[in-house]
Amino acid sequence: MTTRDHALALDADDALAPLRQLFQIPDGLVYLDGNSLGVLPRATAARVAQVVAQEWGQGLIGSWNDAGWMALPQRIGDKIAPLVGVGPGELVVADSTSVNLFKVLSAALALQREADAARPAAPTVVRNVVVSERSNFPTDLYIAQSLCRQHGCSLQLVDRPEDIPAALGPATAVLMLTQVNYRTGRLHDMARLSAAAHAAGALTVWDLAHSAGALPVALAADGADFAVGCGYKYLNGGPGAPAFCWVHPQHVSRAWQPLAGLLGHAAPFAFTPGYQPAPGIHRYLCGTPPVLAMAALDCGVDTLLAAQPLGGMAGIRAKSLALTRLFIDLVGQRCGGHGLQFASPDADAERGSQVSLAFAPDSAAAQHSAAFGVVQALVARRVVGDFRAGDAQDGLPDILRFGVTPLYTRFADVWDAVEQLRQVLASGEWREARFNQRGVVT
Amino acid sequence: MTTRDHALALDADDALAPLRQLFQIPDGLVYLDGNSLGVLPRATAARVAQVVAQEWGQGLIGSWNDAGWMALPQRIGDKIAPLVGVGPGELVVADSTSVNLFKVLSAALALQREADAARPAAPTVVRNVVVSERSNFPTDLYIAQSLCRQHGCSLQLVDRPEDIPAALGPATAVLMLTQVNYRTGRLHDMARLSAAAHAAGALTVWDLAHSAGALPVALAADGADFAVGCGYKYLNGGPGAPAFCWVHPQHVSRAWQPLAGLLGHAAPFAFTPGYQPAPGIHRYLCGTPPVLAMAALDCGVDTLLAAQPLGGMAGIRAKSLALTRLFIDLVGQRCGGHGLQFASPDADAERGSQVSLAFAPDSAAAQHSAAFGVVQALVARRVVGDFRAGDAQDGLPDILRFGVTPLYTRFADVWDAVEQLRQVLASGEWREARFNQRGVVT
Repeated sequence: MTTRDHALALDADDALAPLRQLFQIPDGLVYLDGNSLGVLPRATAARVAQVVAQEWGQGLIGSWNDAGWMALPQRIGDKIAPLVGVGPGELVVADSTSVNLFKVLSAALALQREADAARPAAPTVVRNVVVSERSNFPTDLYIAQSLCRQHGCSLQLVDRPEDIPAALGPATAVLMLTQVNYRTGRLHDMARLSAAAHAAGALTVWDLAHSAGALPVALAADGADFAVGCGYKYLNGGPGAPAFCWVHPQHVSRAWQPLAGLLGHAAPFAFTPGYQPAPGIHRYLCGTPPVLAMAALDCGVDTLLAAQPLGGMAGIRAKSLALTRLFIDLVGQRCGGHGLQFASPDADAERGSQVSLAFAPDSAAAQHSAAFGVVQALVARRVVGDFRAGDAQDGLPDILRFGVTPLYTRFADVWDAVEQLRQVLASGEWREARFNQRGVVT
Repeated sequence: MTTRDHALALDADDALAPLRQLFQIPDGLVYLDGNSLGVLPRATAARVAQVVAQEWGQGLIGSWNDAGWMALPQRIGDKIAPLVGVGPGELVVADSTSVNLFKVLSAALALQREADAARPAAPTVVRNVVVSERSNFPTDLYIAQSLCRQHGCSLQLVDRPEDIPAALGPATAVLMLTQVNYRTGRLHDMARLSAAAHAAGALTVWDLAHSAGALPVALAADGADFAVGCGYKYLNGGPGAPAFCWVHPQHVSRAWQPLAGLLGHAAPFAFTPGYQPAPGIHRYLCGTPPVLAMAALDCGVDTLLAAQPLGGMAGIRAKSLALTRLFIDLVGQRCGGHGLQFASPDADAERGSQVSLAFAPDSAAAQHSAAFGVVQALVARRVVGDFRAGDAQDGLPDILRFGVTPLYTRFADVWDAVEQLRQVLASGEWREARFNQRGVVT
């Protein structure tokens, strides 16, 4: 049996441990939900206050130039770029993940439509299918459905990740995946799936919501064509932080994206009535940058960059795997007898930075829809994970989700979380009504 | 001649004068650019700090429920609704003005396409034209161009506002206008133009960037079908604040908008793979609300609501017209001999909350492209207006733009601004190289 002292010894030996001081974490809270909303960096409050009081309050419109506001989408993008394996000037911060996905998926479909039209003979098969996972994050599927309606395409949803390569064919326009599945934490093999997509003539769109900042991402090396990512999970940018998007340089200037706004114009301040998209990734900008939110994101990204001298993303990944492995081992050792199963992969190479649990369909807990109550009972015990509803129709179970963030999660936190989980299961307190009132859950 | 004492007397008699105390305005600055970026409300810094340190830092994901984050788009929307003449539950805060314009113009074009398709006989004319002004704000025209490409429509740009009604006909799908033109400050007659559009079978899309919070807007009464507006001008929400959008209840549940994200789903937290748009305006939401930026916008909107017991939007409008009239009179009395002309309308009913000036084409100043240098020389003298570039090809002159914001602009500010303008013109200092280096201008 793994002891708490063992966990403490791992913390004592952890090169990344000092980074936890960069964050403001509520006393006594075990926070395993950084994959939903990252915690507050200590630097953020002062930086945002300075932007409000000085840059906005005193500098007013002069700050668009003097405080560099107009350069924020590119400047913060350049900080994120090395975290996801792309070069400076290739990635911008803008809008939300959903809106950015709309931009890049539109562009990908437009490129395929142009390629169809450019073939010498009328093609017998047109590329009009977007392939994704049924358990992909819903907003990704909704955006894809909307664009499929518009482009006369269909959305093909694959149930099992291992069936993805076989789903790719001559009609596939785009393979659109979230690199780490939000429910299961499964890490897709970006290189292998991108190669399979390219072999079939398809383009790839990757959502990095649960991977950027959580593990090394190598967009360029692994054959991604388009990517988007979230600012408020592992980048610690604050609730609803701006998102980012990247387009491979070989595609970036070849298509309009439809949200053709002033900031994406080749000469935004010439104020000419005719749209002329900027060369490069700037054409993926649209409206005015949200300055306060960008300042907070900037601080969040800096917390990841602080890990660079301590091993960088490789070090973060190693610690993440050690944390989730400890979680898996402890659940196996201490939480038996309740039908709890792992919904996240056991193999390190296939696991993102979270452990997902579900109750076996035939367990008493599953019959009583226990997952929500268990998560709530844990919150009452100051252990924050989260609940993701399943869908009986699609055969998806309710999920208990525990994310680890190596910048601030300790091995002792994992030990304490599993101990509380053990107690919640043993006591059956999740059956109490107060833990089973579902409100708005995010 | 109007004296400074006269301006001071108007300030002493101004019922709205106490509201200036709600703002943090740099000492000695005459800020006539609230139509670009509103000034900082005093309440904002503390509110944003509280959201960062408490709601995010301590409450973490619990704040989506406990601090009401998820309700922000509707809660702030309900505060803005009465300022633009619509009911509670009809307007939401989300994304940027450009992105919201994309949503509503898409929906309007989709409704017209459906109406075309539903006609019993094949129509001889389809509605495939979007009518707007050539001098509309560029981002509006770019979004319209993008959607026209997608929908197989064309964008018809009218040069003179008085020619708009004649441009409406059986092929007009949408009349898209900014209620107050960003260059000239011309206030369109929303009721008359909406009626003309409807008589021609067209729908109307109104951008309220320079009217919401600046003057009474009556979207429902004046026949608007769709509207968007900006959070960081007269709503004082801070740089890049979230924008808002409204759809007439008769249309709102009839069409998808294409940015079909999680927050616009009928049951966002059921996490179902199939998109089902929410009934009502919630379907115009897309991604996660930007909480920090929304908190700042909330404070900004509160500054307008503070005017309610002092006469509300009608009182704001009366003061705005008095301020711009004083500006016009003073320029006429004191700034002659340099070819300066008014680009904004003289009639009160046609003038928004700004005065726009341009140099006569045959003046020495116009020959020397003086407008930019004059604005810069004024900034050096602590009078902030702004410059909007013209376009020789389209016959649009360079514009000097001076916005008044009755919540904080004083009559004495107007007097002082015109006095500084007089001195800049008389001294010819705008010719100095330091005032003519154009950087990024917003």
